[in-house]
Amino acid sequence: MTRIAILTGQNDQYQGLLESQGVAVSQQVAGSPIWLAEPGRAAALLRQGHPPPTWLASTYAGVDALMAEDLPRNYQLTNVRGIFGPLMAQYVFAHLLSHLRQLPLYVQQQARRLWLPHPYPSLEGQCLTLLGTGDIARQIARVGKSFGMTLHGVNRSGREVAGFDRVYPATELKTALAQSDVLVSILPSTPESRRLLNADTLAALPSHATLINVGRGSVLDPSALVAALNEGRLAHAVLDVFDEEPLPADSPLWQHPKITLTPHVAATSFPEQVVALFVQNLTRFKQGQSLLHRVDFERGY
Amino acid sequence: MTRIAILTGQNDQYQGLLESQGVAVSQQVAGSPIWLAEPGRAAALLRQGHPPPTWLASTYAGVDALMAEDLPRNYQLTNVRGIFGPLMAQYVFAHLLSHLRQLPLYVQQQARRLWLPHPYPSLEGQCLTLLGTGDIARQIARVGKSFGMTLHGVNRSGREVAGFDRVYPATELKTALAQSDVLVSILPSTPESRRLLNADTLAALPSHATLINVGRGSVLDPSALVAALNEGRLAHAVLDVFDEEPLPADSPLWQHPKITLTPHVAATSFPEQVVALFVQNLTRFKQGQSLLHRVDFERGY
Repeated sequence: MTRIAILTGQNDQYQGLLESQGVAVSQQVAGSPIWLAEPGRAAALLRQGHPPPTWLASTYAGVDALMAEDLPRNYQLTNVRGIFGPLMAQYVFAHLLSHLRQLPLYVQQQARRLWLPHPYPSLEGQCLTLLGTGDIARQIARVGKSFGMTLHGVNRSGREVAGFDRVYPATELKTALAQSDVLVSILPSTPESRRLLNADTLAALPSHATLINVGRGSVLDPSALVAALNEGRLAHAVLDVFDEEPLPADSPLWQHPKITLTPHVAATSFPEQVVALFVQNLTRFKQGQSLLHRVDFERGY
Repeated sequence: MTRIAILTGQNDQYQGLLESQGVAVSQQVAGSPIWLAEPGRAAALLRQGHPPPTWLASTYAGVDALMAEDLPRNYQLTNVRGIFGPLMAQYVFAHLLSHLRQLPLYVQQQARRLWLPHPYPSLEGQCLTLLGTGDIARQIARVGKSFGMTLHGVNRSGREVAGFDRVYPATELKTALAQSDVLVSILPSTPESRRLLNADTLAALPSHATLINVGRGSVLDPSALVAALNEGRLAHAVLDVFDEEPLPADSPLWQHPKITLTPHVAATSFPEQVVALFVQNLTRFKQGQSLLHRVDFERGY
């Protein structure tokens, strides 16, 4: 029998779900050829000198913790894909619409028994630009279209993607940003994406634009963001991801009036969905087939 | 030249928009055969004994102020349709997603520099039931579908409507309610819709359900709502419309912890859109054609 070790913050739940599908779980990491693991926990073990498994199945989409240069890469790494799109779309439109329709203001007015309507713009016809055009972006695009938005995407090559009105290559990033009413970054942490949103590129956004970062914190230069907000060159930012998480208590981002901040909750891995993907891949593993959702160590995703 | 009187809270804006389209406006209501009017303002004039115009073009969708029994009905009444769907959908999903993803809680946590993620359910797979299956409901349904929700509708006959997985006749309202995770009423104020949501029907909703009323206040019995919320038979309510507006300061709805309340802002008539519809109908009026968006005084919408 193939031994499988679990390294997550919800081991009991994962064990129960796996056993209900007839998959036995090992209590020992050493000697287990398969790890079902959160990237940070797996990275810590590897850093301690544990030999890597044959297959490491990440329970997260973001595997940047395993891309560090001091860690081995001589194993097969898979992540979870296809399950975050709906949750990401819900987060993006929760925050975008809450801001557009001034929900926090109405909460305050309700507490004061104050009946006072305010004018607002419509989302219809606004331009939503997505950095990244993968499956999460396509799901956000689908919802944006249902609201009557114009959808632009940015990817490496500028290749067309179904569901987008227009896709720009990364080399034309600033052209894309200049047309954006709303900008959403879903980019993973890679050497290429690092600080892609910096003082120079943020300057291309219209001053009325809203920026939402649900990818990785490293993509956005927080100092450049604060400067743009302070100088009125950007209207609002919604941040779910940061260079360091939890965000340090002394960060100026916490209490900036134009920043809405959440503790990395845009898309959570629901164990039921992670296990369903894992069991599917486990069958392939046992049959000697190639694994789905392989991470390319060179690209970093 | 046909004389047109304007009776709104934004007369100057309406006059400018009409004149930019070559339509002259009269300062005199008396003798003007066409009124472009908010229903409440028109009703007040009619009640004072002003003879009705030949055509009264309401700037609102809801014309219940003109349905009072003491008012004349010997004129053509049109309302605005087709422009509220996107705004209503934005309101519904702003509030639904904000509640689901606990945005007010994260606002509080941010103010305290507290990094504390909370679990949440997904909208995907939830059942959204719409009371009403007209153009506003269809727009909400379209967005709900893009989020992967199951869409149920309720209308008089139970006739099928594109975009809905299932439509129930009004006689099976309680069957429809029992399956709802989210219930949205878009119903107009009519004798039939009055207190359709009462102690008896609200009892059919699952206790985890959220109720959103963006139609008319008269549809919902507020006492029955408060009782259901207090007794844990309903999770949350979002109310934009009330029996009396502005909502009186002593209403128990204001500070109920399970009620989110807004001052009738779900869908605003943007004058540009109202004028576009009006000018289209004005051409038909001058040519002796039947008017679009006629209101049936018997049905009340």
